[in-house]
Amino acid sequence: MHQERFQISTRGRGTYDISREIMQIVARSGITTGLCHAFSHHTSASLVLCENADPSVRSDLEQFMSKLVPDGDPMFDHTMEGPDDMPAHIRSILSKMDLTIPVTNGRCGLGTWQGAYLWEHRTHHHNRQVTVTVMGD
Amino acid sequence: MHQERFQISTRGRGTYDISREIMQIVARSGITTGLCHAFSHHTSASLVLCENADPSVRSDLEQFMSKLVPDGDPMFDHTMEGPDDMPAHIRSILSKMDLTIPVTNGRCGLGTWQGAYLWEHRTHHHNRQVTVTVMGD
Amino acid sequence: MHQERFQISTRGRGTYDISREIMQIVARSGITTGLCHAFSHHTSASLVLCENADPSVRSDLEQFMSKLVPDGDPMFDHTMEGPDDMPAHIRSILSKMDLTIPVTNGRCGLGTWQGAYLWEHRTHHHNRQVTVTVMGD
Repeated sequence: MHQERFQISTRGRGTYDISREIMQIVARSGITTGLCHAFSHHTSASLVLCENADPSVRSDLEQFMSKLVPDGDPMFDHTMEGPDDMPAHIRSILSKMDLTIPVTNGRCGLGTWQGAYLWEHRTHHHNRQVTVTVMGD
Repeated sequence: MHQERFQISTRGRGTYDISREIMQIVARSGITTGLCHAFSHHTSASLVLCENADPSVRSDLEQFMSKLVPDGDPMFDHTMEGPDDMPAHIRSILSKMDLTIPVTNGRCGLGTWQGAYLWEHRTHHHNRQVTVTVMGD
Repeated sequence: MHQERFQISTRGRGTYDISREIMQIVARSGITTGLCHAFSHHTSASLVLCENADPSVRSDLEQFMSKLVPDGDPMFDHTMEGPDDMPAHIRSILSKMDLTIPVTNGRCGLGTWQGAYLWEHRTHHHNRQVTVTVMGD
């Protein structure tokens, strides 16, 4: 059992690679076989696994989501913090705020093309807290 | 290792706060550091983390989902239990049937603005079963 | 703690029932109370829980997703592997690449109507790797 929290300072909407942070925490845990769980303590930033080779995958993903949940949609009542406020909550629920990845042979078992990303959904910069828990033998 | 099941009687479509139930189970588990997992044993009710301060967030979320997956869409063949039957299955898959939250210092590590909700997707009332498993030291 | 990997050869886009594989691994683990986690090591195939009785649920789900994320949408730049390439990444992120299910009384605690499916999002056949980790007492 090993648990650490780290912080990411985002520069506004977009995906931020946290694969290295997660892999380092798995290595520090000394756990050989088990599970690694990462959790975003926010309702407007999510954690996702995404293709890690071609950056256009992540820009296409962003464009898709921006069209699916448009900023400033007049349907929304919750607009206190601006046109990206309610869309950020919906995007987070659709893409989820946590990840669970197997640990095998002492390593985080991400697939070759899988990267772990924090997805900032607000247009302005934020400090985001992520807790990583590693369990196993 | 600690596991409990509880039941929620819903009054039809909408979100039902289960944060207190989850926090109490974590407290009863006596576990200090680890993970807490909640699971809905259904394919038409999901578990989500959502902003917990302004109720308009959850009504906007409901409206968004109702527009994304309209009840009675003529595209659906599976309509045995009515116009909300197939939409309830799709909504559950898009919003997922389980949650995993870190346990830190003996407490459920939800963020300040994160609440845990059972989201009933059927229009009529149902009894929903949720299993909570707490693992750790 | 018990971990196994298995492979599924898909015949292209669609859902493939993996409930039996998961239940057998839980049985082999000898674990009585805990959690079972299944993980797809890919960014174009996901793992979902879905109604397991009427096949039209899964064909309706497929149709819904095909309309939500259309193959060949001109909005996408990432088209290297064809019109289903970028949609497969988005579908996987929306439906997620892993599942966590409680283990109770030595059995995988799926609800009566819940089946576990690998969802192949590419139109051609692929070999998909799934790691299942069972933790508990």
